[in-house]
Amino acid sequence: MRPIASGSLRMAIELSWRTARSVALLGATLMATVAASTGAVAQALKDIRTPDTPLVLESRGSFFVGGDVVQQSFVELGSKVPADQITVNQMYVEYMIPATGKGIPVVMIHGSTLSGKTYDTTPDGRMGWYEYFVRRGHPVYVPDQVGRGRSGFNQAIFNNVAQGIVPPAQQPRLTRLADRVGVWKNMRFGPNYPETYPNERFPVEAIAELSKQDIPDFNLAVPTPNPTFKALSDLAIQVKGAVLLGHSQSGAFPMQAALVNPAAIKGFLLIEPGNCGTYTPEQIAILARIPALVVFGDHTDAPTGIESLPFLWRDALASCKAFIAQINAAHGNASLLSPAELGPGNSHMIMQDKNNLEVADRMLDWLDRNVKAKK
Amino acid sequence: MRPIASGSLRMAIELSWRTARSVALLGATLMATVAASTGAVAQALKDIRTPDTPLVLESRGSFFVGGDVVQQSFVELGSKVPADQITVNQMYVEYMIPATGKGIPVVMIHGSTLSGKTYDTTPDGRMGWYEYFVRRGHPVYVPDQVGRGRSGFNQAIFNNVAQGIVPPAQQPRLTRLADRVGVWKNMRFGPNYPETYPNERFPVEAIAELSKQDIPDFNLAVPTPNPTFKALSDLAIQVKGAVLLGHSQSGAFPMQAALVNPAAIKGFLLIEPGNCGTYTPEQIAILARIPALVVFGDHTDAPTGIESLPFLWRDALASCKAFIAQINAAHGNASLLSPAELGPGNSHMIMQDKNNLEVADRMLDWLDRNVKAKK
Repeated sequence: MRPIASGSLRMAIELSWRTARSVALLGATLMATVAASTGAVAQALKDIRTPDTPLVLESRGSFFVGGDVVQQSFVELGSKVPADQITVNQMYVEYMIPATGKGIPVVMIHGSTLSGKTYDTTPDGRMGWYEYFVRRGHPVYVPDQVGRGRSGFNQAIFNNVAQGIVPPAQQPRLTRLADRVGVWKNMRFGPNYPETYPNERFPVEAIAELSKQDIPDFNLAVPTPNPTFKALSDLAIQVKGAVLLGHSQSGAFPMQAALVNPAAIKGFLLIEPGNCGTYTPEQIAILARIPALVVFGDHTDAPTGIESLPFLWRDALASCKAFIAQINAAHGNASLLSPAELGPGNSHMIMQDKNNLEVADRMLDWLDRNVKAKK
Repeated sequence: MRPIASGSLRMAIELSWRTARSVALLGATLMATVAASTGAVAQALKDIRTPDTPLVLESRGSFFVGGDVVQQSFVELGSKVPADQITVNQMYVEYMIPATGKGIPVVMIHGSTLSGKTYDTTPDGRMGWYEYFVRRGHPVYVPDQVGRGRSGFNQAIFNNVAQGIVPPAQQPRLTRLADRVGVWKNMRFGPNYPETYPNERFPVEAIAELSKQDIPDFNLAVPTPNPTFKALSDLAIQVKGAVLLGHSQSGAFPMQAALVNPAAIKGFLLIEPGNCGTYTPEQIAILARIPALVVFGDHTDAPTGIESLPFLWRDALASCKAFIAQINAAHGNASLLSPAELGPGNSHMIMQDKNNLEVADRMLDWLDRNVKAKK
């Protein structure tokens, strides 16, 4: 049972935001005066809306899962400290546990070129899924993938290249998405920058704030298999059972984690996976024991503008439909929350779209019906 | 006025931890069983102590300050998306605002090779300064420096080097501290790994968890002046007045931010700055208008084991004493919270030492006496 009825909490939050709007407008005027006198003030903080009700947490904090201790040379460590050991491949996790509610823990993993920030305050200042799921009674754990954000990465090869010890061609590329094609077109805000789709749900006026979430992606530099898979499986064990939520690049990470050890993984929430993956019959038998909900937005047939992946989302949706069919053929429980159910216009960044909390409500209802809580 | 008496809250938290210890021991037994059956479970989460009282927040979230939009080539973006614009030099900030209390906002900036994680849950699972200051009625803002963690960095030169467009020798070194010299000896846990100082305050049994906080440092790659300086000054303006707390590498960042624009900077908390900096008389006149507390731990005369900085902390303390004298000579208000006042054994990582909340209480008392709250 949830502690608070879904619709009423969402409505309270939204009403509070409407009330806050007039206050924010006054604040904006004041800030404009400050800006004029100082030259440059960023736009983000004043646009963040304060919820109507306080957030009451039993606890919150951060920790790491996994990590390998390795010995590195003076050069590999950056030519400052002597040869010594460091830790690499650890996964940073932040979390909040609500004071009330007995929901199952949810782990939210971000996608390519992004960090755990994905699930926090949206680019236009609304509440993200991280806090919303906590307010709905779920402990929520938000990692940075190994190689990204506060998890760090193994810098050895970069320093060896700079020192002439390793040829530059061996240095892994660091990928970015960039604003107009990699984000705008590929994430389906519109057919081409700056055109938007009719009824587009992403807050496109705040694209500059989304651009700030984009950071270099080291996935071509992390070991194989990606240490994040085992870290997610270990995290689920540590919290004594969790639903794993993946997005885009990490859309199939929940399945990869379950193939390391499925024991503590109680559900899959798969938000626009880049690909749901292909599995052997033995692997499908393992995965079919875990309920799965796949969520896709609108305009998946549109071209991405990325040469190597021209119809990424059309192909991704097809791969996920095939995955759902395989799971269900093995007597599993997999389903698709489709664009038609959500109404038109959801982008690839569903957790930041204007109806993000409505979509969250659908996912929370699915959890209630399909995934047993811890106690 | 503070909402809760300092000593009593700290005592309540500490008592709660003692009570939690027996529960934790039971938990540890259960986890050991799980670990035996799965092969490898990280040690961190089960060691985190749950506070006795819930944390009640008016709001929390994250946003970015600053950022420059730049055009980059196909190669610079990682050879995946076409030439396009991205944002670099933005500063990620997470924050919590307590539901009660009218304390002045505090911005906590981390040091070299670390991230905002510095001020959160300690390596041995105790509460960090981030949450403690919030529980004592202060809104707290925790950035990642530009070039670190969720702030990201400009990857263009790395991809240009990999592609053979820029010579490898031009690629900036990425520095790490490493466990035995850069951390153990240099951060003054003991004279040489694994010896500890008598009465050492750092929880050395948890050094593996501190090692996981250490990530590659891009400070040799960020522009000059470091964009974090202006971002901190802008952040103080956005929150309408803040105390800036720096540590180690960022120990002089609060002064650098004030030299960009001192208007909204209401105090300096300088935790073991690597150097307090040298300033012109005109600059000292600006800085002397802002109250400053410098905090140093013990064993500052010990050698660091780092060749280029053999007596870093002895020299750092000397530079900060000179800074304090200059500020006071200019009719300012600067003082030193010294090792003798704290009792022996504090390390360079004071915010994670076993008496971290006692030290926080001293700093909070200083804020009460020396810095006017917002309202």
